[in-house]
Amino acid sequence: MVYEATASAPVNIAVIKYWGKRDTKLILPTNSSLSVTLDQDHLRSTTTSRADASFTKDRLWLNGKEEVIKEGGRLHTCIKELRAWRAEEEAKHPNLPKIAALKLHIASYNNFPTAAGLASSASGLAALVASLAALYELPQSRSDLSRIARQGSGSACRSLFGGFVAWREGHAKDGTDSLAEEVAPREHWPELQALICVVSDAKKGTSSTAGMQATVETSPLLQERLRVVPKRMLDISRAIEARDFDEFARITMADSNQFHAVCLDTTPPIFYLNDVSRAIIALVQELNRASEAAGNGLLAAYTFDAGPNAVIYAPAANMPAVIAAVDKYFPQANAFANPFQVEKAPLPAGFDESVVHGGWEKGAVKQLIHTQVGDGPRRLDDAESLLNAEGIPKTLA
Amino acid sequence: MVYEATASAPVNIAVIKYWGKRDTKLILPTNSSLSVTLDQDHLRSTTTSRADASFTKDRLWLNGKEEVIKEGGRLHTCIKELRAWRAEEEAKHPNLPKIAALKLHIASYNNFPTAAGLASSASGLAALVASLAALYELPQSRSDLSRIARQGSGSACRSLFGGFVAWREGHAKDGTDSLAEEVAPREHWPELQALICVVSDAKKGTSSTAGMQATVETSPLLQERLRVVPKRMLDISRAIEARDFDEFARITMADSNQFHAVCLDTTPPIFYLNDVSRAIIALVQELNRASEAAGNGLLAAYTFDAGPNAVIYAPAANMPAVIAAVDKYFPQANAFANPFQVEKAPLPAGFDESVVHGGWEKGAVKQLIHTQVGDGPRRLDDAESLLNAEGIPKTLA
Repeated sequence: MVYEATASAPVNIAVIKYWGKRDTKLILPTNSSLSVTLDQDHLRSTTTSRADASFTKDRLWLNGKEEVIKEGGRLHTCIKELRAWRAEEEAKHPNLPKIAALKLHIASYNNFPTAAGLASSASGLAALVASLAALYELPQSRSDLSRIARQGSGSACRSLFGGFVAWREGHAKDGTDSLAEEVAPREHWPELQALICVVSDAKKGTSSTAGMQATVETSPLLQERLRVVPKRMLDISRAIEARDFDEFARITMADSNQFHAVCLDTTPPIFYLNDVSRAIIALVQELNRASEAAGNGLLAAYTFDAGPNAVIYAPAANMPAVIAAVDKYFPQANAFANPFQVEKAPLPAGFDESVVHGGWEKGAVKQLIHTQVGDGPRRLDDAESLLNAEGIPKTLA
Repeated sequence: MVYEATASAPVNIAVIKYWGKRDTKLILPTNSSLSVTLDQDHLRSTTTSRADASFTKDRLWLNGKEEVIKEGGRLHTCIKELRAWRAEEEAKHPNLPKIAALKLHIASYNNFPTAAGLASSASGLAALVASLAALYELPQSRSDLSRIARQGSGSACRSLFGGFVAWREGHAKDGTDSLAEEVAPREHWPELQALICVVSDAKKGTSSTAGMQATVETSPLLQERLRVVPKRMLDISRAIEARDFDEFARITMADSNQFHAVCLDTTPPIFYLNDVSRAIIALVQELNRASEAAGNGLLAAYTFDAGPNAVIYAPAANMPAVIAAVDKYFPQANAFANPFQVEKAPLPAGFDESVVHGGWEKGAVKQLIHTQVGDGPRRLDDAESLLNAEGIPKTLA
């Protein structure tokens, strides 16, 4: 009998940003956040977990490279807690196979290159938790599992759900109420799409773990942000409920800007946006201005995480114009994968070329990824297992 | 008899930034600010004002180009108020020549190119006020005159003094207590020098007049900044009093960062810093880190106004290292004017080249201007007059 499960989990991109911990060990945030889950058909982490009596210690491979599971570290904590839940089940149900005591081999793989600069820790930790929960046949809810994922990597908790997901900051000291909840499933607003613009940056950025605590410790403006976020959470939840893209876009852009503002108010200041990022912002602004001037709503919304990459959200109907504009001002070295077979549309009438910062060479935006709102973690067939018969990643065998 | 006076006035660069008006007509700020006056021997505006019975209307030339004095505009307000004070004097002292009723010709000239991107409105308005006050032999104090200059261009009020200057926000509705005061004269801390790094930027920036009101109207974080500034004003005043460069530098950099943070928190966001500005910040940070690691104090402090140009403050003893570092990473197309005959010094021991963003081409920093703390407006000799016998700028004659 092989005790094994394989699961995949999605990337999520926040529209209300998480930046700052009130408890760095439990990973409790200073404010609630909200994200859109992106489609696993395009971007995903896949993890296989196997328990076997022949294994002599817990081992984990990430993209084929073995990682150390540090005692007391984040990975260790996640594995330990899920194993403890399995042990509880085994104690309650004596007929269950005794697999909590067995050592684990875990292999995880991201289908997007690390070089793309997309945070892989959220999808990776979510896939780990989902595969272990499946292996252990845990009865806990996804919100319960999100508390475990949160301790692996804060924003990973949001990748336990599809659609639109809130991470409630919670108030309990032990973090039991700091978990993810679905605000709306993908089916509620399936037209929402995302265009990821992968931006080159020579500069090595500040890690988000270090950066957010520097902000907590030194930014006076963060205090005001913490007063601002609760209303934004309500407002954007209502906008999602109403599928009101204008309101969704306004809040998304304002919150991205405010997140980068508190980074800049940090000592020493943290910069994630570069001149290409600024140019993408100017381009989206002008698309929106021209669209509004023509009596229509906003075309698109930008958001930036802890790096120069832009994620542009737009309804499917607006994407052809967005892609045409991005492709015009940021010429691509290679034709981009176009899963939706989008035909480029003309720029909106009245679009003012003079306000966009042009003249970018090929490679300033080095890759475009077009995707859409997606579902939560998926249990995959055994055929998708990443481990061979000996429990070693197939890619290494 | 020729009724004429010529005066020059200095540029000032704020270390606690002015950004936001609570009254746009009277130019009353949302917070107090504090600046260092730079030396007129290097950067100055010069203005000649003449009153003559042969003139048929008030006229003004700026750098040889005639400007319209708009009824109710800022220039008009300044001239009207100073003329009214002269009229009061003439009413009190019947022996005084009756020149308040005469039309004026005014010529103003900046000795620095507009292309340098240095705000010329502060020094220009201060020179205008100083020359008219001299022409009219007004008894008012410099703080009184600063209230007039403030209505011409907010930060101009700070150019009425040398050394270290506070612009008190005031509380009166009519603005009578919103004026500039000397915090310390240049002689108190004459070692303080400044290196202006003129940075190229393809992007046309948002004007500060429009930008600051957009921030007042849309930035949630500005509210916290307004709570933060009063303590910063006290702290930096004490640092100046104590000639404590470390404390002065820390507050200066934090306030520059915070000003740009509230710009970024504005909708739509305002960006003044570009990748070259960021690289200068990284360079100053590394100079300071290396200096502190070697057991010394901070070497330098950066500050950025509403544009990509850096002003780097440092004590004279540190300037050779600062200039060597800037010149190394931002090679100059032309040897820069070096009024202090500074010999370049080596970079501090332990300076880590890997954290500085190198590879900049000549022209990324297109000009360096090395100057120091300076004095307030100067009355100049008649020989310095900018007007010819007919009352027309000599440069046009």
